[in-house]
Amino acid sequence: MRQAVRILDVPTPGQGLHEITAEVAAWVGEQEMTTGLLTLFCRHTSASLVIQENADPAVRADLQDWVAQVAPESRNWRHQDEGPDDLPAHLRSVLTGVQLSIPLIGRRLALGTWQGIYLFEHRKRPHRREVALHLLGA
Amino acid sequence: MRQAVRILDVPTPGQGLHEITAEVAAWVGEQEMTTGLLTLFCRHTSASLVIQENADPAVRADLQDWVAQVAPESRNWRHQDEGPDDLPAHLRSVLTGVQLSIPLIGRRLALGTWQGIYLFEHRKRPHRREVALHLLGA
Amino acid sequence: MRQAVRILDVPTPGQGLHEITAEVAAWVGEQEMTTGLLTLFCRHTSASLVIQENADPAVRADLQDWVAQVAPESRNWRHQDEGPDDLPAHLRSVLTGVQLSIPLIGRRLALGTWQGIYLFEHRKRPHRREVALHLLGA
Repeated sequence: MRQAVRILDVPTPGQGLHEITAEVAAWVGEQEMTTGLLTLFCRHTSASLVIQENADPAVRADLQDWVAQVAPESRNWRHQDEGPDDLPAHLRSVLTGVQLSIPLIGRRLALGTWQGIYLFEHRKRPHRREVALHLLGA
Repeated sequence: MRQAVRILDVPTPGQGLHEITAEVAAWVGEQEMTTGLLTLFCRHTSASLVIQENADPAVRADLQDWVAQVAPESRNWRHQDEGPDDLPAHLRSVLTGVQLSIPLIGRRLALGTWQGIYLFEHRKRPHRREVALHLLGA
Repeated sequence: MRQAVRILDVPTPGQGLHEITAEVAAWVGEQEMTTGLLTLFCRHTSASLVIQENADPAVRADLQDWVAQVAPESRNWRHQDEGPDDLPAHLRSVLTGVQLSIPLIGRRLALGTWQGIYLFEHRKRPHRREVALHLLGA
């Protein structure tokens, strides 16, 4: 068994879901393992990682609307220093999670047919996000 | 160190929590490892995996009510093609998560006394769900 | 490659976020690995584990307020036997998650600059919580 690691840079244009499945799968493929475990870790507190449907883009738009309803901008949050979208971004990061682990089986990530891997940007302005990738296997 | 993988088939009768602890623990036991890491990955975008109390069934009923409040059915969602319960199912999958990793210590999963592993079905009709299991250890 | 495990005891004074980053990082350092994967697993159904900002304490106060809004105390929950804060604690545990995996790269956990690891206590009274730690690597 062996390990491989990489820091993936993900530029984001603003709030929303940005698919990284192809880039992640390509890197995993280069490691030439048959069986293993891939872990993705988002190194930020105002962005997150989710698995979601990769077919109808309306699902991603609804998902964006939903996080904005569940963790809304509000003048009542104490933390306001970094702008009105910052504290809700922290809440949405906790709501949706910053880490995913996906088994590698038969040389392929065990994603279902309709599953894609997305970086979920919660700030309004463009950012550069870092996702740490760790693969171990054989 | 070595690895073992399996795709677990989980038939679900409809919305709600379906315990898979015994089936998962049995498979882990067959691998005869002392120390390791088990990862479970739900290969769907309208079902999820959660750890919850395995004692009072009322907790599961309350949990079902709660996800229905936080991610309700609504005519305002854009994605309606697959029925009114489909988009909320995607949201509930993100809310509760599709992946769990549990350490194996002293030949046993490190679950607490009251913790069970559940597949959380978010669609109303029966489904067959696949959970990818990956165990590594020694 | 090798593994190390430990059960971390975390006393909590009541509801809120309790940082465990230093204690976790110290234990990881003692294992003297360069590359690896750390998994933390909370052995309870009324506490959880989150990554959040380690700078402004107001973020943690807002996060506490937010979980109390999304998963409120209510007389309508069926499960009331263990007090009004028990069922909401279960919901908040599902909302925020009980498990985290963090890559170890270059002898350091791949946490971002502003990321801390927190045990999130959801019960009002003090508790002793157990977090299972599993590290594998080389």
